[in-house]
Amino acid sequence: MKIQLEQVLPKEIEERSFQIITQKLNEMGWTPDEPCASIVKRVIHTTADFDYVKNLIFSKDVLERALDAIRNRASIVTDTQMAMAGINKQALKQLGIEAYNFMGDDDVAQKAKQNGTTRAAACMEKAAGLEGPVIFAIGNAPTALVRIYELVQERELAPALVIGTPVGFVNVEQSKELICSLKVPYIIAKGQKGGSNVAAAVVNALLYQLYKR
Amino acid sequence: MKIQLEQVLPKEIEERSFQIITQKLNEMGWTPDEPCASIVKRVIHTTADFDYVKNLIFSKDVLERALDAIRNRASIVTDTQMAMAGINKQALKQLGIEAYNFMGDDDVAQKAKQNGTTRAAACMEKAAGLEGPVIFAIGNAPTALVRIYELVQERELAPALVIGTPVGFVNVEQSKELICSLKVPYIIAKGQKGGSNVAAAVVNALLYQLYKR
Repeated sequence: MKIQLEQVLPKEIEERSFQIITQKLNEMGWTPDEPCASIVKRVIHTTADFDYVKNLIFSKDVLERALDAIRNRASIVTDTQMAMAGINKQALKQLGIEAYNFMGDDDVAQKAKQNGTTRAAACMEKAAGLEGPVIFAIGNAPTALVRIYELVQERELAPALVIGTPVGFVNVEQSKELICSLKVPYIIAKGQKGGSNVAAAVVNALLYQLYKR
Repeated sequence: MKIQLEQVLPKEIEERSFQIITQKLNEMGWTPDEPCASIVKRVIHTTADFDYVKNLIFSKDVLERALDAIRNRASIVTDTQMAMAGINKQALKQLGIEAYNFMGDDDVAQKAKQNGTTRAAACMEKAAGLEGPVIFAIGNAPTALVRIYELVQERELAPALVIGTPVGFVNVEQSKELICSLKVPYIIAKGQKGGSNVAAAVVNALLYQLYKR
């Protein structure tokens, strides 16, 4: 068996990948509804999973609001080191954006233990204390989304954007439905699928709308 | 609409998730073929994507060989910071294992530029210089797998294990087929799907066979 590699220069791999994704979407009869199409395509680029065409849902005018928040130097808060690692650091730097992950913090571990909750939930409480607009990028913990929901209900939090893409089987779908029931800007991966990689891909897709490479 | 959350203690979420995964696999008529079933289940836990039942393929006796390598304190080399971030650090520490990612190294960037290749490929050359057994956990760059293939062919490298789960559309499937054509221990996610999260999940599934929580 001869395995043939496609000859593509390193810097052209991403562009070629997006061409293939766009072509496949066209074959599927999906007419890209810009501007959110760029987010859908980047998530497919990250997962090779075309289910995200159906799974990703967007609140009204969310792209406009998200970009406004980024222009206003919103902080980004993740629920995993993995999502943090996946966010483009050069883009953050150029746009003057800080990203935070509190999962390893001692005060978070202590609070979670005290309250019998997860560290992810305790992180959201810590994030509620940040100055300025906050974009939440939650790719792992449904308990983080549930805590965001509660904090919004209690008027303790008004997120600039909630990216909600936890993956899994216990309270994952419900936690996403809770966010969709709020009047906050959201980008949600419906159903069981998602992940830290998906959350990071959504963040990057947003940053790349403003980032000059 | 009333959204009902399942009442599960934080420490029980993972166990409950694996019960749900096992049940669904039973419904699908998939009889777990231990010991590799633990790897398949952990990847599904990470992705909620049951395609991995079919996609994950294993070379003969791979689990035995991988665990031998881990007992012999094999180094783990990843092709992304994201895969690094996803590997359980407490398990690494307890088992006395080092994990490396050379993507940010200056000598790697320089070598990639010189050779007109990717940094991921240059990282594999650097990894070939490590002492002792090496487990490669490649979740992103097909060029890393291609370079591993070439180094093995040139007898410059004899990996203890190649975890090959790049995701994407350009040379991804071919790079995985190249690894499967070698006589090296491998765990491969066939097709376009995969990711750094999948590579990290496979590593963790292996570590958890020996890690005492």
